[in-house]
Amino acid sequence: MAASSREGLNGIEEGDGVIIVDHGSRRKESNLMLNEFVAMFRERTKYPIVEPAHMELAEPSIRDAFSLCVQQGARRVIVSPFFLSPGRHWNQDIPSLTAEAAKEHPGVSYLITAPLGLHELLVNVVNDRINHCLSHIAGKADECSVCAGTGKCRLRQ
Amino acid sequence: MAASSREGLNGIEEGDGVIIVDHGSRRKESNLMLNEFVAMFRERTKYPIVEPAHMELAEPSIRDAFSLCVQQGARRVIVSPFFLSPGRHWNQDIPSLTAEAAKEHPGVSYLITAPLGLHELLVNVVNDRINHCLSHIAGKADECSVCAGTGKCRLRQ
Repeated sequence: MAASSREGLNGIEEGDGVIIVDHGSRRKESNLMLNEFVAMFRERTKYPIVEPAHMELAEPSIRDAFSLCVQQGARRVIVSPFFLSPGRHWNQDIPSLTAEAAKEHPGVSYLITAPLGLHELLVNVVNDRINHCLSHIAGKADECSVCAGTGKCRLRQ
Repeated sequence: MAASSREGLNGIEEGDGVIIVDHGSRRKESNLMLNEFVAMFRERTKYPIVEPAHMELAEPSIRDAFSLCVQQGARRVIVSPFFLSPGRHWNQDIPSLTAEAAKEHPGVSYLITAPLGLHELLVNVVNDRINHCLSHIAGKADECSVCAGTGKCRLRQ
């Protein structure tokens, strides 16, 4: 994955909508986490149309999100699965749900991007989580926002 | 999450072992992906002891990986959940399996780090996946390694 594609090359154009889709959970907190991620993503990329969706178990569905993109002017929809592994959901379920959704919007094209796992930057993410935890237990840093208040970030025996 | 923790501060010390644990799958490819990630992680961090583990459904277990770390000299084990969301697996299952594993190794301490979701670098990962796909369909880049050969990376209607 070329670093250049993060440093200038930007394929998103006017008329593009982005849907970030996770599995969906019965736990409200998990679904809210996707909203929070989408807010971060919108803010940092400044892309004009970005919508969250859940594959199942929670609203909004891929179908809802696809319609919302089209309502905002999207003529091309990029569906980005918020999954680490290229498993069955990426392989079959999300393509099939997206194809269904697209049927209702003739003339709108779409594509489904790769899942996240094995991206070189994930090494940095994992390493940063580790180093932050170690800094916290060494008394040099606050708990991260995930662990804050849970009492989880501590050395055990 | 301070950028400084990626740019110098490195809390891993001699005698530390790292376990990167995913859910585990009946699909061999998913389990192999973790091995591939661990290989990338080892190579880039140069940490002396790094082991993969699956929470369930596949070997090696957290218990196996914990023993392997101790056999290689670990006196402190850092368990890093390869999960996006801080759900039940992070909250309960992994801590409980790790506590069981640690019981067999008196004197060895451990900690469990935060999951990956909402790390600021994940915005870059998602954005890079999107831009790479768009470059591919514009004829400016090869398919990424995830999509290569699947015929998946194309615009549909």
